[in-house]
Amino acid sequence: MIVKLIEDKIQGGKEAINEIYNMGYYGRPKGNTLELTLVEAAYLLYRKKIDIELDKHILEFADFIKIASRRQPYFELKYIVYKDLRERGFYVQPSVVDFRVYPRGGHPGKTPAKSFVYVRSERIPMPLRDLIKPLNSTSNVRKQMILAIVDEESDITFYEIKKVEPKGNMEMLYPHITTDATILHDRVIVWESSSSNTLYEQGFYGKLLDLEHLQLSLVESAYLLENNIIKVHDRETGDLLNFEEFSKRASEIEPEFVGKYKVYEDLRNRHLVPKTGFKFGTHFRVYSQARPPKKIPHSENLVHTIPQDYEFALPVMSRAVRLANSVRKRMLFAVQSEKTVEYIDIGRIKM
Amino acid sequence: MIVKLIEDKIQGGKEAINEIYNMGYYGRPKGNTLELTLVEAAYLLYRKKIDIELDKHILEFADFIKIASRRQPYFELKYIVYKDLRERGFYVQPSVVDFRVYPRGGHPGKTPAKSFVYVRSERIPMPLRDLIKPLNSTSNVRKQMILAIVDEESDITFYEIKKVEPKGNMEMLYPHITTDATILHDRVIVWESSSSNTLYEQGFYGKLLDLEHLQLSLVESAYLLENNIIKVHDRETGDLLNFEEFSKRASEIEPEFVGKYKVYEDLRNRHLVPKTGFKFGTHFRVYSQARPPKKIPHSENLVHTIPQDYEFALPVMSRAVRLANSVRKRMLFAVQSEKTVEYIDIGRIKM
Repeated sequence: MIVKLIEDKIQGGKEAINEIYNMGYYGRPKGNTLELTLVEAAYLLYRKKIDIELDKHILEFADFIKIASRRQPYFELKYIVYKDLRERGFYVQPSVVDFRVYPRGGHPGKTPAKSFVYVRSERIPMPLRDLIKPLNSTSNVRKQMILAIVDEESDITFYEIKKVEPKGNMEMLYPHITTDATILHDRVIVWESSSSNTLYEQGFYGKLLDLEHLQLSLVESAYLLENNIIKVHDRETGDLLNFEEFSKRASEIEPEFVGKYKVYEDLRNRHLVPKTGFKFGTHFRVYSQARPPKKIPHSENLVHTIPQDYEFALPVMSRAVRLANSVRKRMLFAVQSEKTVEYIDIGRIKM
Repeated sequence: MIVKLIEDKIQGGKEAINEIYNMGYYGRPKGNTLELTLVEAAYLLYRKKIDIELDKHILEFADFIKIASRRQPYFELKYIVYKDLRERGFYVQPSVVDFRVYPRGGHPGKTPAKSFVYVRSERIPMPLRDLIKPLNSTSNVRKQMILAIVDEESDITFYEIKKVEPKGNMEMLYPHITTDATILHDRVIVWESSSSNTLYEQGFYGKLLDLEHLQLSLVESAYLLENNIIKVHDRETGDLLNFEEFSKRASEIEPEFVGKYKVYEDLRNRHLVPKTGFKFGTHFRVYSQARPPKKIPHSENLVHTIPQDYEFALPVMSRAVRLANSVRKRMLFAVQSEKTVEYIDIGRIKM
């Protein structure tokens, strides 16, 4: 069956509607014609279901691919993903975010689409806003948002992107203490033995240096200082630092301090227990509940703080998600705006 | 027993030699005096083995820590690691790279030290040369080099650092073919069916797009072009690109191309099979041997290319190594100089 290449579209006649649309839901019927995208046509050409005519010549597969690659940005990427989805038995239609995918057993005209698939190359950094926009449109229409990343060898990794509201079970106990602490180079030490143990056991704050002394991280210290539980002294002068002075000093040590602190505070407000995620290369590992000296449970989430103008390097994102998932944790990216913190869950899925 | 704080050293007398050095190998005897570092003294003070005198006053633990923290850069970090090693039963002495650690059952005067331990804070980026220098000195004296990274909550992760010479078993088959290929946006397609299959099966080059066409990554294409196995055409003009033209174009697509290519070529020369490591967030996953359509074995190594002036962000290094080790692979950093490629293996260890 012969169809025609016209600019960046393919057009077939009534026969195409009968044989191609009605049999496999390729393309979109418009009156007596069937319109196909370049990607759909490439797949049908490879499957030898159509012949594509341009200027009264029938195109070879290689020639059509070269032409399509010139006429549509990232044509090959989209073709690779389209072919993969089709060969896994999904019906696929174009959409504003590359593809609409129907659920297994469903097809156009019978069921609504289940997922929107957004295709990116691993090579091209992805600004956060490029992710948020399709995420908002898909969640507005209650669809699943899927990011398909094509690597340099044309392997595809699928990620499901979701907004989530993490919640924990840790009661907000503010111990009725006020105790002295000192900021050394980049950590804070609580000197008094019973306060050290109370903070550690009631809130899983810090780490015991020994039986008597507690070390706190900068975000933990700022949080306890803000809540009047510790008083932080300068190690040289012994002078007390207020929250603003402490934050300023912490920001000199750790440029990302303010953003991290906002997320730390938000997680604590959600009754979660954030601890450092250094071993996983993220800002926090997060527990639903933790009460040492009882056994500390598995931490379900890793949280990494990112600003609104963040740009994902996709190999770095891939590594973060892969590591999190390999230790049975969710990888959440915490986006801080002026007033709120939003959590975006990026997880590998099999299609 | 009273010892004296003098600048950044602690001095004890004969009694100290008998009770502290002879019993636990703390400090270094010099004639009738025993010299201790601030770190050793802090640990002995915490263990209540010594009293430390300054200006005729005996110091409290908290006061000594504050003073030591002012007198020695990163005193707390070194104290945390020293205390940890001692409590695991190791004898520890100072060395040019922070600590010399004796093997289990060994001690100063009986056995040589086994390892050199280099202490860093996760917060402070580590230039590659800061790692290479102690690595060279330790391997010159045939010691193990250990990097101890202290995170913001004072947890320690130990890494063993080694130079390695990876070797594979993949015969260097250059198939006797020369076949046409086209560079599309950022990948190359081989059009001819039998060449596609030969390249894939004999060298595990590329990925089959379908039964007839092979997609190659940019580094694979450059390697095959350099060895006259493929001819690469421009998709617009059909003109042939030579190796230099191709490299130039690849570098525009992928700024790290030249470095990656050098390492790719070196790995192939070592009879290894490098494939993209995107799913692990690294440049390459590397097989000892791979002959599709036979089952592809486990890839033992991940390789990431870094320039000589590279600076490790330690949380990023932590994530890379953790992920590699969690999937039973070695994490190798390939350092390219003008002529050679050196491989540094960074692996987590338990002390």
